[in-house]
Amino acid sequence: MTSPKTDRIYTAALVVIGDEILSGRTHDKNIAQVASWLQVQGIRLAEVRVVADVEERIVEAVRTLAERNDYLFTTGGIGPTHDDITVDAIAAALGVPVIVHPEARAILDRYYADKGGLNEGRLRMARTPEGAKLIPNHRSGAPGIQIENIFVMAGVPHITAGMLDALTGKLEGGAPLISETVGGYIPESEVSGLLREVEKAHEQCQIGSYPFFREGKVGANFVVRSTDAGELKSCIDTLCDGLSAAGYDFTPGGI
Amino acid sequence: MTSPKTDRIYTAALVVIGDEILSGRTHDKNIAQVASWLQVQGIRLAEVRVVADVEERIVEAVRTLAERNDYLFTTGGIGPTHDDITVDAIAAALGVPVIVHPEARAILDRYYADKGGLNEGRLRMARTPEGAKLIPNHRSGAPGIQIENIFVMAGVPHITAGMLDALTGKLEGGAPLISETVGGYIPESEVSGLLREVEKAHEQCQIGSYPFFREGKVGANFVVRSTDAGELKSCIDTLCDGLSAAGYDFTPGGI
Repeated sequence: MTSPKTDRIYTAALVVIGDEILSGRTHDKNIAQVASWLQVQGIRLAEVRVVADVEERIVEAVRTLAERNDYLFTTGGIGPTHDDITVDAIAAALGVPVIVHPEARAILDRYYADKGGLNEGRLRMARTPEGAKLIPNHRSGAPGIQIENIFVMAGVPHITAGMLDALTGKLEGGAPLISETVGGYIPESEVSGLLREVEKAHEQCQIGSYPFFREGKVGANFVVRSTDAGELKSCIDTLCDGLSAAGYDFTPGGI
Repeated sequence: MTSPKTDRIYTAALVVIGDEILSGRTHDKNIAQVASWLQVQGIRLAEVRVVADVEERIVEAVRTLAERNDYLFTTGGIGPTHDDITVDAIAAALGVPVIVHPEARAILDRYYADKGGLNEGRLRMARTPEGAKLIPNHRSGAPGIQIENIFVMAGVPHITAGMLDALTGKLEGGAPLISETVGGYIPESEVSGLLREVEKAHEQCQIGSYPFFREGKVGANFVVRSTDAGELKSCIDTLCDGLSAAGYDFTPGGI
């Protein structure tokens, strides 16, 4: 019998907001960062959408994904400039007004005290949907925002990282999805039958096959994932036995 | 008067398929790659979704995004293993059966002739939705797939790149979105009013503001985008005049 904790799967979605990602100008770093952080919290990243700085697109993504997941995270669009419209879009998605959050305003007042003080642009960063709490930002002034199951974070990756740090251990999650990898210079097309059989025989595990080309040679890493450590070990053992029986060299941990 | 070519804006969406991106294990490289390639074709990337290896999620994303864009691209999930379900999902989304494509089968037959020949897994890569054409793949055997306005590509970035090469110049696009950048150690929160005014005065341009922290200093790059070169120049000139008037140092081309 499994404990109640492992029965419940917690999911999250991420909405990456910004024309700069869609134009190819900026290479997104937040998908991988948020994905890895969620794993440790016992929460699965179920879907990501990258949307333009267009309110209706943000609203559509936020509504759909907040509804179908335990948590929704957004990155980007909470700075001081005219193209930062995330707060307005979240408020519109939830049907609440935008207010100047007194605590956020106080934080920004202190942060900009020796930098010329608040102005119209900086004050934009104190705006939140009504009813929001703040997510601390120890790396620059402007805080992130939490409202309902939505977590609104900065887009600059090291500031996003700081906000994730502030949220570490604060969100209810389930059993973390654990994984183990074996890899080798094995063409995945030669072992697809084996992979399928091993996965079928281990209901609580998923096997992913990730091919690569290196030094002119074809290979693959096979990643087994499960929330159950015993099942995971049993599955990886069966897979290794199968690879050995078929005469392949492989490396535990992957290559 | 603008030419008809510049009047029509062509858009595309991208669906990145794969648990490995959502788990944080693999850092996606295809969003930036496809985004940059599309710019050159005169096509705007309007939205990206990253979805799990789950048929209903792929179907949902494909249906929604193929409908609302001129083109839809997918990456991932077309290999030989059991977790490669993209072809089935695309067929389901379009309501057509999956067939073994004779030309794809012939390509794979030749490719694997000196590598042990076709087997069940390798034959999976000859499957397409009925009615599809092939996208050449000069880097490994298995071709990509085109059906209607959907382009199904590999997930391994250098193979994706090869398929994009094969499509270069083949898709109808509009005027490419061109951009020019100025940047400096300028806190964006000090110039948000200026950016807003300059954008308002140049209807055919968008200005994006991308802050950074470097060597302990705050700065930003301001990117002006337009399909009209004259408007772009006028907008960037006005912006530079404004920054100069406010006493800021800046670097054309960005920093």
